Order: sequence, then C-alpha cells, then structure tokens
Amino acid sequence: MTDNQSAFSTFIPMPTQPVDFNIVLFDDFETLDVFGPVEMIGMLPEKYRLGYYSPNGGIVENRHAVRIETKPFTTMDASGILLIPGGMGTRRLVDDEEFIQEIKRLAESSQHVLTVCTGSALLARAGLLDGKKATSNKRALDWACQNGPRVNWIRQARWVQDGKYFTSSGVSAGIDMILGFIADRQGLKTAQKIAARAEYVWNADPENDPIYQTVK
Amino acid sequence: MTDNQSAFSTFIPMPTQPVDFNIVLFDDFETLDVFGPVEMIGMLPEKYRLGYYSPNGGIVENRHAVRIETKPFTTMDASGILLIPGGMGTRRLVDDEEFIQEIKRLAESSQHVLTVCTGSALLARAGLLDGKKATSNKRALDWACQNGPRVNWIRQARWVQDGKYFTSSGVSAGIDMILGFIADRQGLKTAQKIAARAEYVWNADPENDPIYQTVK
Repeated sequence: MTDNQSAFSTFIPMPTQPVDFNIVLFDDFETLDVFGPVEMIGMLPEKYRLGYYSPNGGIVENRHAVRIETKPFTTMDASGILLIPGGMGTRRLVDDEEFIQEIKRLAESSQHVLTVCTGSALLARAGLLDGKKATSNKRALDWACQNGPRVNWIRQARWVQDGKYFTSSGVSAGIDMILGFIADRQGLKTAQKIAARAEYVWNADPENDPIYQTVK
Repeated sequence: MTDNQSAFSTFIPMPTQPVDFNIVLFDDFETLDVFGPVEMIGMLPEKYRLGYYSPNGGIVENRHAVRIETKPFTTMDASGILLIPGGMGTRRLVDDEEFIQEIKRLAESSQHVLTVCTGSALLARAGLLDGKKATSNKRALDWACQNGPRVNWIRQARWVQDGKYFTSSGVSAGIDMILGFIADRQGLKTAQKIAARAEYVWNADPENDPIYQTVK
C-alpha cells in the first residue's frame, strides 16, 4: 500500500449535503399534488431534505381537512428544488400579485422548479413559462392558457420538461413526473426501485397521457 | 300538477349527514398510505367528513418532515369508517399494548375499517383479523404473519376485503383499494369518475397484484 492509498483509507468523507426540496403550500392546495411527489422523493433522504413553506408560515389547510405546519417563505433557502402544487387555492392566487411575485423570486433562484396540476398557472402568471413548453390539469387547460397566453401549452402530455421547469398534468400525474425527475438525476434504476418500493406502477413515458382521450 | 306534486316541488330535503371518515395517525406514518385514500374519498365531500386522530392529539410527524395537526382519539366518533396507515411507526406500535387496545376499541365500533400497507399488522395484533383474509406490504408480509399467526394472509393481492375489513398491499395500493371501497358504496361509475378527475389510472381488480412477481 502506498502512502497515498494509506492517506485515502483513513480519509472519512464529509457527508454530501442533501439538496433542499422546498414545497410551496397555501390554503386549498390539492392533497395528492403534494404528497404523491413527497412519498417518492422522501425515499431518498440522503439526497433531499424536505421542507414545507407558505407565505407567512403556520398552519395551512385544505378541503380534505388536512392541517399542516409550514415555515414562512422568508426562511426558505431557495437554491434547491421547488415544488408547487395545484388545487382550488390557485384560482384565487393567480390574482394575488404579492404571492405571484414571491413565487417568481423563489422559482428564479431555484435549481429546478416542479409544478403539479394547476400549479403551472402560478408559474405562468409570474411570466416564467413564457416561450416555454408546459402542461397542466386536463380539465383546467383553458384556464391555464388564459393565465399564460405566451406559454407553449402541451395539451397531451403526462408531464413536460423545458429547461429547469417540470410541469405535470393533474393530481396523480405528479407522481409519474417526480419519478421522471428522479430518473434524470439519480438514474432510471433508482426511480424504478423507488416505484417498486412504493408498490406504484410507474407510467415512465411523459408523452403517454392516458387521461387526454377522456376529456379532449 | 296535483297537490302532491306541488308539495314535493317545494320540499327542500334535509342534507344527508356525511359519514365520518376517521384517519388514525402516529409518528412515522407513511405519507402516501394516508393521502392517497384521502385524495379520492375527499372528492365526495357530501358523503364523507374527514378527520385526523392520534392517541393524544396534537402534531404528528414523519420522516418526510410532514407535521399534521390531529385530534385526540377520545374525541373520535368511531361509528363511521376508520383508515389505518402503515409506515415505520407500526414496527414500534405492534408492541404498544395501550395503542393496540385503542385500535381494537375504535375498529370494533366502526362500520368499516381500511388499512394500507403495514397498518394491517396493527389490526392483526389486536386479534381482529383472526380467521379472516387480509394482506399487507409485499416486503413486510413475513413480519405481518408474525404479528397475526391466525390470519389468513393473502400474499398475492392488491387488496382484500373480508366483511367490514379492507386491507391493502403497500403504499400506492391504498389508492386502488379506496376506489374499490367507493365503487362498493357509491357504484363503479362514481369510482371511475373520481379516478379520472384525479388523472389516476385505477387498477380496479383486487386480485391483480403487479408487485407480487417482483418480490416473491
């Protein structure tokens, strides 16, 4: 063994810092938009550190009587990954200029931004999807279009990636998207293993949109 | 128009009381075990009133940094439907005699009891599945068997119904089970509509267990 090897063998590597996975919450968020992706990304605790944030922190609640504790936006280190869910709350928030400006600030500084369902309308309203491909809930696409007339909306897609932005179709589609995101970063095998551990049958093709035919 | 018809046309029916859908939470519950079923049952707000309960109430948290507000078990009207998730927390709770006795009391008085993943081990430990068919997480079935030696464990099943008890396989299987439960109570079309609204591809066959082959 050379001295060099000896030096390496006693070297204890510093643990790699997990990337912040920051979840935006607001009243009337859609339950599964958040907790589908959380379940999957949460299976890689050494890679991601989950945190839940709302404009002022405190308890956020929705129509499923979920009351979840959040931290204020001001305490978020928005350099990691940002997840923005949809839900009825977005109908009101697209017209809340202060909220939209906060979303813009957090999204611009984040490495990646992922939206589920009508969460993409919030990003669109912030102007961040202008000229980019994106999708949204199959039943809310016309409304999403109104909120982002310069977005290249893809009607038939399970999810869409354009640069750092991943946008998914409605509710359950967020689970397929997050597994796609994990496959991009950690490899296909890791994503497949996570899906199997969660006993989830993953639709791994972003262009395979099984719902499109039922609502078009 | 007859007098009778006239009477009906001005008759405003009293709203039917929704059935309590009571969710048992504990530290280290599995995120999607809870919020998959919640998303689906929550689409029928006129039928079910959701509530989250833990032994002493207050904030319950899990490894996904989810912090949920709960009410104490003593405040639950346990005459409706009881949902018991799995998760690493169950490993400890099967040996917590006080908790198991509470689960027994709540489950016995409930109209229906649904478990996801290793939640069935809690019911088994309470003796409530003795002589009954049940299933659990595909990777934890041996452990479930140890906790319920007199249960007729079905290894290959997405979910199993036996009388008032519905038990599902791991994590995501809870979504298929709750849609099956909704189909039983509100009809197949309602369940299919909910799945489509959530953009979820429902595996509607309880005997179709796509994960079994991968872990047996």
